[in-house]
Amino acid sequence: MSRTGYVVEVHRTDALLLRALYGGSKSYWELMREGQAQTYQVLKALQTLLERELVTYDGDRFVLSEAGRRQVESLGLDRVAEQRCETCAGRGIVLQPPFDRVLETFQKIVTMRPKATPDFDQGYVTPETTVLRLALMAQRGDLVGRDLLLLGDDDLTGIAAALTGLPRRIFVLDVDERIVGFIRDVARDRGWDNVHAEVYDVQDPLPENLRGQFDVFFTDPVETLRGILLFLSRCTEALRGPGSAGYFGLSYLEASWKKWRDIQRGILDLGFAITDMLGAFQEYQLENIVAQGYPVARMAPVAVKEPDISFYVSTVYRLELAEEPRPLFTGRVELGRDLYYDDEACVTLPR
Amino acid sequence: MSRTGYVVEVHRTDALLLRALYGGSKSYWELMREGQAQTYQVLKALQTLLERELVTYDGDRFVLSEAGRRQVESLGLDRVAEQRCETCAGRGIVLQPPFDRVLETFQKIVTMRPKATPDFDQGYVTPETTVLRLALMAQRGDLVGRDLLLLGDDDLTGIAAALTGLPRRIFVLDVDERIVGFIRDVARDRGWDNVHAEVYDVQDPLPENLRGQFDVFFTDPVETLRGILLFLSRCTEALRGPGSAGYFGLSYLEASWKKWRDIQRGILDLGFAITDMLGAFQEYQLENIVAQGYPVARMAPVAVKEPDISFYVSTVYRLELAEEPRPLFTGRVELGRDLYYDDEACVTLPR
Repeated sequence: MSRTGYVVEVHRTDALLLRALYGGSKSYWELMREGQAQTYQVLKALQTLLERELVTYDGDRFVLSEAGRRQVESLGLDRVAEQRCETCAGRGIVLQPPFDRVLETFQKIVTMRPKATPDFDQGYVTPETTVLRLALMAQRGDLVGRDLLLLGDDDLTGIAAALTGLPRRIFVLDVDERIVGFIRDVARDRGWDNVHAEVYDVQDPLPENLRGQFDVFFTDPVETLRGILLFLSRCTEALRGPGSAGYFGLSYLEASWKKWRDIQRGILDLGFAITDMLGAFQEYQLENIVAQGYPVARMAPVAVKEPDISFYVSTVYRLELAEEPRPLFTGRVELGRDLYYDDEACVTLPR
Repeated sequence: MSRTGYVVEVHRTDALLLRALYGGSKSYWELMREGQAQTYQVLKALQTLLERELVTYDGDRFVLSEAGRRQVESLGLDRVAEQRCETCAGRGIVLQPPFDRVLETFQKIVTMRPKATPDFDQGYVTPETTVLRLALMAQRGDLVGRDLLLLGDDDLTGIAAALTGLPRRIFVLDVDERIVGFIRDVARDRGWDNVHAEVYDVQDPLPENLRGQFDVFFTDPVETLRGILLFLSRCTEALRGPGSAGYFGLSYLEASWKKWRDIQRGILDLGFAITDMLGAFQEYQLENIVAQGYPVARMAPVAVKEPDISFYVSTVYRLELAEEPRPLFTGRVELGRDLYYDDEACVTLPR
């Protein structure tokens, strides 16, 4: 089975797209997900494959050409099946009690929630993702009996957490008063006296009464370097100390590995070790991506339709404080629109 | 379902052990795995649970006492089922073609391999783990048509990689001439002209002809900070440049999160971003842990038997060069026994 001396070099992303297409035609959004790279990189790979006529577009989906098929076979890509576990979609976690039942109730509650607004770079994860986060936290010992902080919670993870009945205290901070109002309403209706929600702008100092009060945080922050570090810094300040844990989501679709590296350096500076990083753990249900002219749709090499799948995924990081928390910012920080938008953003609307 | 004001605080590891024991009695080794923490931390938690008589030892296995059961129920831990996916054991990857067939052949080959020696801190992963590594690499686009370096290969990942027929070139470096000889013999028998193996001591500079020649490396290094960074530095020097990837295994059983943080800082300094970290991805088949007096067995709070499960697991990191490689060491580095042994080692034999 030895195989030496390929004529053609292919890059990682090209090969991933070719292999995906060997399994059948794919939409733009499916390829965006299969590429496992920054949007720009996937676009570049797709452009190359189209130019080299290894792939064609039939007006609806991308298809492997005869030349593409030969390329796949000469590389041996045809012999490599999908290795991702189908049962858990590669997450390693499946919803078992009590989380399976929590999801049912949660799905009813979220139908009534405030609509996402690009004003705050909102964009929900799927309800299943929200509950999977909690299952992961429970699996790591970070949910039962813990004091939990949520910084930015348009996904309503706080409500899902309360539905499990497992954390000791749940505190939600969000800049959007509609979210805060909604969470307060649900908490009042259900008689949850351990659930609190406050309006808070991450650019402001963390309220004094929240510093050093939590065992665990979860945040799915904005996508800019300074924005992410600001979110993480505020969260860090809220933690008790060594052994406290944090979770956050980060997508490679809108951030180069260079940016990931800078973010990771910031995480270590805050006093954390990174203990887990689970790729494509979070799926988002973004709407009107084409209609609203998001860059990821405008930059497509062909005219594309609205997404047919949850193409936007993100990695969940788990962090644990290896020493005393060292916030990077403590006072007021002015970021303005730069909080939400930088050069690598593709699924964020500039204004 | 709201739940406030617990009387008793429990730490993360205590809670993880209690929940595991609620599901039935457990061996020392099963608890070591369930604790998801450094050996010392799991030992401390177990000691506390025994002292507080929440857990008892029946001469063979650990059992939850009546008080322990009440504690579990008052915390709500009884309502939390195991969330790990059973299909893939939480790895997110299952062996599909060609890797399932590769495993069958590989299992026959490894029966003939040289025995592990503590001289080089050897200790094999299971054959399934070896092949799962390759499935993961294929899934990330890091196997097909790639030039692959293995630094330290008592697991024989190089042979398994060659069995897939997918990499372009496979180069193994190992300090143990028995391993190198074995790989060369298998390669000759099978007519693999793209598989090479050389004796190499990581304390020596990387041979010039290997610098900048590889797309991907895999290494499962020693467990000391300087040792790990030395292994990773040599591997980094062998990579082509930005976009090249690396994989390595690291266990939290023998390293505090503080040490993980130091290792992670070193990884960023080398020029990488960490792209994935999959916990408990690798399982080891260690033998005679009790008979040989490994610290993890000697430190047990009761007299324990030889492991009944693969208790020793490690996290797989995937790294990608975000910029030009920046090796931390280029010349000869003398580490002696410090290469293998430090204060946090528990499953390594001091000499």
